[in-house]
Amino acid sequence: MIERVKGTRDFLPEDMAKRRWVFEKIREVFEAYGFKEILTPVMEYTKLFQLRSGEEVVKQLYAFKDKGGRDVSLRPDMTSSVARLYVNSFQMAPKPIKWYYIANMFRYEEPQSGRYREFWQAGVELIGSDKVEADAEVIALFVESYLSTGLRDFTVNIGDRILLDEFAGMLGVSDDIGLMRIIDKRDKLSQEEFINLLKEFGLGESEIEKVLELVEIKGRPDNVLPLAEELFKSKKAKEEISKLYKLTDLLEWYGVKDWIRIDLGIARGFDYYTSIVFEAISPNELGIGSIGGGGRYDNLIEIFGGKPTPATGFAIGIERLLPILEWKGLIPKPQTGPEVFVIPLKDMEKVAINIAVKLRREKIKTDIELSGRKLGKALDYANRVGAKLVIIVGKRDVERGVVTIRDMESGEQYNVSLNEIVDKVKNLLKR
Amino acid sequence: MIERVKGTRDFLPEDMAKRRWVFEKIREVFEAYGFKEILTPVMEYTKLFQLRSGEEVVKQLYAFKDKGGRDVSLRPDMTSSVARLYVNSFQMAPKPIKWYYIANMFRYEEPQSGRYREFWQAGVELIGSDKVEADAEVIALFVESYLSTGLRDFTVNIGDRILLDEFAGMLGVSDDIGLMRIIDKRDKLSQEEFINLLKEFGLGESEIEKVLELVEIKGRPDNVLPLAEELFKSKKAKEEISKLYKLTDLLEWYGVKDWIRIDLGIARGFDYYTSIVFEAISPNELGIGSIGGGGRYDNLIEIFGGKPTPATGFAIGIERLLPILEWKGLIPKPQTGPEVFVIPLKDMEKVAINIAVKLRREKIKTDIELSGRKLGKALDYANRVGAKLVIIVGKRDVERGVVTIRDMESGEQYNVSLNEIVDKVKNLLKR
Repeated sequence: MIERVKGTRDFLPEDMAKRRWVFEKIREVFEAYGFKEILTPVMEYTKLFQLRSGEEVVKQLYAFKDKGGRDVSLRPDMTSSVARLYVNSFQMAPKPIKWYYIANMFRYEEPQSGRYREFWQAGVELIGSDKVEADAEVIALFVESYLSTGLRDFTVNIGDRILLDEFAGMLGVSDDIGLMRIIDKRDKLSQEEFINLLKEFGLGESEIEKVLELVEIKGRPDNVLPLAEELFKSKKAKEEISKLYKLTDLLEWYGVKDWIRIDLGIARGFDYYTSIVFEAISPNELGIGSIGGGGRYDNLIEIFGGKPTPATGFAIGIERLLPILEWKGLIPKPQTGPEVFVIPLKDMEKVAINIAVKLRREKIKTDIELSGRKLGKALDYANRVGAKLVIIVGKRDVERGVVTIRDMESGEQYNVSLNEIVDKVKNLLKR
Repeated sequence: MIERVKGTRDFLPEDMAKRRWVFEKIREVFEAYGFKEILTPVMEYTKLFQLRSGEEVVKQLYAFKDKGGRDVSLRPDMTSSVARLYVNSFQMAPKPIKWYYIANMFRYEEPQSGRYREFWQAGVELIGSDKVEADAEVIALFVESYLSTGLRDFTVNIGDRILLDEFAGMLGVSDDIGLMRIIDKRDKLSQEEFINLLKEFGLGESEIEKVLELVEIKGRPDNVLPLAEELFKSKKAKEEISKLYKLTDLLEWYGVKDWIRIDLGIARGFDYYTSIVFEAISPNELGIGSIGGGGRYDNLIEIFGGKPTPATGFAIGIERLLPILEWKGLIPKPQTGPEVFVIPLKDMEKVAINIAVKLRREKIKTDIELSGRKLGKALDYANRVGAKLVIIVGKRDVERGVVTIRDMESGEQYNVSLNEIVDKVKNLLKR
């Protein structure tokens, strides 16, 4: 017996049916918003991720040397690959570019509950607009993606890296990234631990007061944006706050404002975000935090050698979202058994195959007894795999021009003439 | 500028649309045949592939050491992973098991035209039946999969490893695998080269005669199976030939016999095949050989430590099939541009967003001007990305309760009242 690779999973038919249900819901919304599907290779040269990423991501890369001695990594997310593709081939294309993907990502860290080495994301990138209208379009789509799965009980919490930068400046902190990292962790810490970390970082009491004031700017935009106006004095900060007001108006017009919260303590892990960032949270008892997130990254394309080009996007973590949808009972129970199971009795194989061919042409999921089992055992199999209907093809019946159709749920049996099988089956399956 | 990893590709929206078209056609047939989707991790421990594979495959594995020093490979095909999954978790499940997958595979060899390091396969595995009925079901599905894409000009060529084994025995050859390898290569060699290789292998003239006789057993089953009966004398071979007759009958009942050929020279590269093997060929001027193949592998599950369990399956090579479909013009031109592009003129953003929201709820692919461009430039963009309709939202129009819809193909313009936009758009898009 050879084990699966550590930290990976197999997806069985029921898993796949559920995953495809979620993917197709999200895909429909992505396409309705005018995003177009792309896919990049699973592997990239490791330096691509080193160029842009926070140290956490690089440490957790699924990196290795290929047979040619090149440093290669399985992608930890799609944004770098998309930016690489844009720089290499799409700088001259009409802007904005709107791309989406549904793909597997990889990381190498000690596997723990809900953290797999191979995991899936559905996401979009909008490249070539620095307008707040582009942020609004992407955030509205982010909300609509969750809504498409039936989820209602969630919020999209919006932060702003420019305001965090300005805040670090106000406090006279030069290591703004260091400060952001601490602020980003606050939800995982007690108030006391949080304050201790800020002290260790070198902040005095009045600065810590300010930090506590900042992380309280958290709630519905109409309630908390006025607080931000009080806290921030600089022109740059004031401009950014106006942008957040405009964003809020736009999201109201998109009809998604109910799900929007401002949370100025949000920084997001990646260092490459430049202004508006956001993440989605859905309250749950499964210990699942963020179910997706994104933000604006106006410098990344330049870092990769392209002409400076603004961009924004998000990724939805399927392994985060799916358990919540299941827990809430939002995913329809998948039908993984065949709709029809055809059992040929003695010498009736040819007729049975004929029936199966006709049903399959109508896209009816049809299975056929292939192992030469007798009726009792074949019925038992049909029952165990969850077939809805069984068609029994017996010689005497066929000589009279009929077969027997059994509804496995109700137990009802019908004698159906050979040329009415397809209609009767559709009727019984309510198609 | 950072390059893509050698031997890999990016798939752009038009590529993805075509690939998804093919995948969905094939998926529909797989499901109609009662196969259920599964997916295994991209990586497996390398020893899994070493245990079962021909040396060619192992040499070409995309193998590496992970950070923990474990020997890991990106899967070269799905059959090993499926057998591993079966052995670990499904030995007690009702048989037969019918699984399908659509997934990426990997190999490490010098990239050449049409041979990528990451490539895609759609395939099935049927586990737990040794009956020729199972071979027929799988081969019928193989034919129907190609038919579903509109392809007609192809054949499925069937060989038999038991007959090749018996043949090696007849010739007194102990290295039957070595002989099979030479026979398998015959289509890439001239008659002279082929004969020379057989001489080097140690065959005398009369044995070479026999080999030439064998590889001529190639054509429609009704024409060539009688020749096989003449060539083979052993009881085991006779039984296997009866099985091929039965297979042919079954495939006739499935309605796919027209595409079936017998070709006793086919061995297929993998060492793990045990009896009936097959591959599909579609004549083309692109230099593409086999577009897919498969066969019975009754020993593999035992090799992986499971209870001996018969199995059969196939894989369709998407990178082989797709160029042929394109070359034949069988893939509908994908619509990758938006169906509707909404352009707000001055101060009309709110109304424009409102219109976009309504259209998107109806799953109409709708884009909206996000960069604040003036009408002329926005129309130019809509034209370049291939939008079908443009909705121009101007202040004066809106005050009169209307917008302008322009059909970008015909150039026609319509004044449409605000609450009739969705209907008019559906009408113009013929939905």
